[in-house]
Amino acid sequence: MKIGVADTTFSRVNMGAVAVDELKRHASIAIERSTVPGIKDLPVACKKLFDERRCDLVMALGMPGGKEKDRLCAHEASQGLILCQLMTNRHIIEVFVHEDEAADDSELAWLAEQRTREHAVNAVKLLARPGDLIKEAGSGQRQGFPDAGPARR
Amino acid sequence: MKIGVADTTFSRVNMGAVAVDELKRHASIAIERSTVPGIKDLPVACKKLFDERRCDLVMALGMPGGKEKDRLCAHEASQGLILCQLMTNRHIIEVFVHEDEAADDSELAWLAEQRTREHAVNAVKLLARPGDLIKEAGSGQRQGFPDAGPARR
Amino acid sequence: MKIGVADTTFSRVNMGAVAVDELKRHASIAIERSTVPGIKDLPVACKKLFDERRCDLVMALGMPGGKEKDRLCAHEASQGLILCQLMTNRHIIEVFVHEDEAADDSELAWLAEQRTREHAVNAVKLLARPGDLIKEAGSGQRQGFPDAGPARR
Amino acid sequence: MKIGVADTTFSRVNMGAVAVDELKRHASIAIERSTVPGIKDLPVACKKLFDERRCDLVMALGMPGGKEKDRLCAHEASQGLILCQLMTNRHIIEVFVHEDEAADDSELAWLAEQRTREHAVNAVKLLARPGDLIKEAGSGQRQGFPDAGPARR
Amino acid sequence: MKIGVADTTFSRVNMGAVAVDELKRHASIAIERSTVPGIKDLPVACKKLFDERRCDLVMALGMPGGKEKDRLCAHEASQGLILCQLMTNRHIIEVFVHEDEAADDSELAWLAEQRTREHAVNAVKLLARPGDLIKEAGSGQRQGFPDAGPARR
Repeated sequence: MKIGVADTTFSRVNMGAVAVDELKRHASIAIERSTVPGIKDLPVACKKLFDERRCDLVMALGMPGGKEKDRLCAHEASQGLILCQLMTNRHIIEVFVHEDEAADDSELAWLAEQRTREHAVNAVKLLARPGDLIKEAGSGQRQGFPDAGPARR
Repeated sequence: MKIGVADTTFSRVNMGAVAVDELKRHASIAIERSTVPGIKDLPVACKKLFDERRCDLVMALGMPGGKEKDRLCAHEASQGLILCQLMTNRHIIEVFVHEDEAADDSELAWLAEQRTREHAVNAVKLLARPGDLIKEAGSGQRQGFPDAGPARR
Repeated sequence: MKIGVADTTFSRVNMGAVAVDELKRHASIAIERSTVPGIKDLPVACKKLFDERRCDLVMALGMPGGKEKDRLCAHEASQGLILCQLMTNRHIIEVFVHEDEAADDSELAWLAEQRTREHAVNAVKLLARPGDLIKEAGSGQRQGFPDAGPARR
Repeated sequence: MKIGVADTTFSRVNMGAVAVDELKRHASIAIERSTVPGIKDLPVACKKLFDERRCDLVMALGMPGGKEKDRLCAHEASQGLILCQLMTNRHIIEVFVHEDEAADDSELAWLAEQRTREHAVNAVKLLARPGDLIKEAGSGQRQGFPDAGPARR
Repeated sequence: MKIGVADTTFSRVNMGAVAVDELKRHASIAIERSTVPGIKDLPVACKKLFDERRCDLVMALGMPGGKEKDRLCAHEASQGLILCQLMTNRHIIEVFVHEDEAADDSELAWLAEQRTREHAVNAVKLLARPGDLIKEAGSGQRQGFPDAGPARR
């Protein structure tokens, strides 16, 4: 089982290092890492991790800025990540933390680390224990901030 | 006849379980289930249900949040689902319930269940009785809330 | 010459029946019909009409609702229809009538029928008499509402 | 050297005729023409001009209306034109004139003709004299309205 | 190692010349240049630089105008550049400078040159020293304006 970790130099938190740290706590996973300038470079970075470095799943980590232009970049990156998955039949776990989701630098660093760790667990489940996710279906899971929980009639 | 059911842990209602329950009431259908973290993971989940688990049609179930960012996620997911269909020549019935379509948790749970059930019926018709849909053409069908009905001159 | 007609149960006017009626007035055309729940199901319906039922051109008929969410659905459907054409090298004539283009149900029904009929004629021209369209180039044609006509210096 | 000219009956100016006229002034170019109803029909029209009629480059000419819905159509068409180019490894020169770029019909007709002529020259350069474009790099060229010119430190 | 440089005649700064100048300062790199009219012509220009001129990476340089329509063009170009990368498994470094990022012509010229130079360095790192980028992961790098730097808890 080999997981790719793709992140950016644009991000203000070393999300790649966090992902590697968390993944190593779970089972025995080989890890391939790729760092690119910005989030729009992530789709092909993931494609190469699949095609050239034989990853079974990739975590794509990024931190879009808070301006309108940055939101559009994130949108373009997300479209590319979805297309990459459809071309390869492999999952990419997108972990994007928007700079304006946090009130200050300290919360931003916390959020980026927490969301990355929780999604690293999702990545392992997708690959190794998909039945665990079926058990959590419809339970209002969130990554980083508190879960929303289920809605009841 | 095999139908895939793909849903999310993000959703606040177990739409996958509802879909399975409804599908089982109709004819003898084999069901394959896949649960992923969020709606942007659905396109490749559907692709894998087609390519690796031989489904003839997939229901893609999700519950986007009510914020602008969530709407964009839903848009990206929908684009991916359409592309997946074009790559496989198979139908995906997208069942998305936006959190802000309902006034409260109770209505949200009702809407998610009702829309899922009605679309499960559509899925069966598409696969087994396409002529039934031709008979309903232009009749203003809605799933969940009441039908709009036909417009008359 | 075989033309596909794809429409929806969501539409409040039976645009598929109108298209079939109009196409039958022109030359001897074989017609294949497919009805799906909503406009986002149209791209793969068209793809299947090309690949599995050997159509030379497809009319894709739909009636998006008047809300922002509906406009986004129409956008996604249109992107899928364009992609489908590029994958198959065949024309799809998209006939979408937005519910908010008309003042009331009666005008909506009129508009849906009129636009469908005029585009059915376009479909026949594209397949059988492409030179007719070259003669109309730049003449400000509209389907349904009155033509805009040419702009003169 | 064969250039395709694709235009629409929706346009209020016969941009296709203008393009043909301008192209004929330059070198000996074979021309293939295709007229379709609207701009969303242009991507596949270009694809067919490449695949079925062996064009080396295509000019895609259109005049989107001034409403929000028209802008979205133009966006969808542009995305399709870019995809078509990536599928064929051939250039499409998109010449779109938005109805609201001009103050009145007379200016609209002037703008459509002027922009088409200037882009016809670009088409010839791309195919026959790419070095001419390198010489103009960064010079703030515009088509129709006056050039913006270079920005200097 | 061969790097492609694709730029536009629309841009008000000769970003292609700047890129070539900067790349030549680093290692021994063969350079292929292509200039096209506008940013929407860049995706296929990059594709041809990969497929026909055997580049290992391409820098795509452009300067979108400041209007809403220009932002949409940039969005379409970016989507095309991402798709091109996924089709070729090669990186494109997009260097776009929006005209409204700068207060005046002088700052615009400075920004276009500075961002191009910094991204030329990124291009070399991606190809020749990917480990250098991993060391910069999460450090809040920006190109042109000052770096944002890391966020600390």
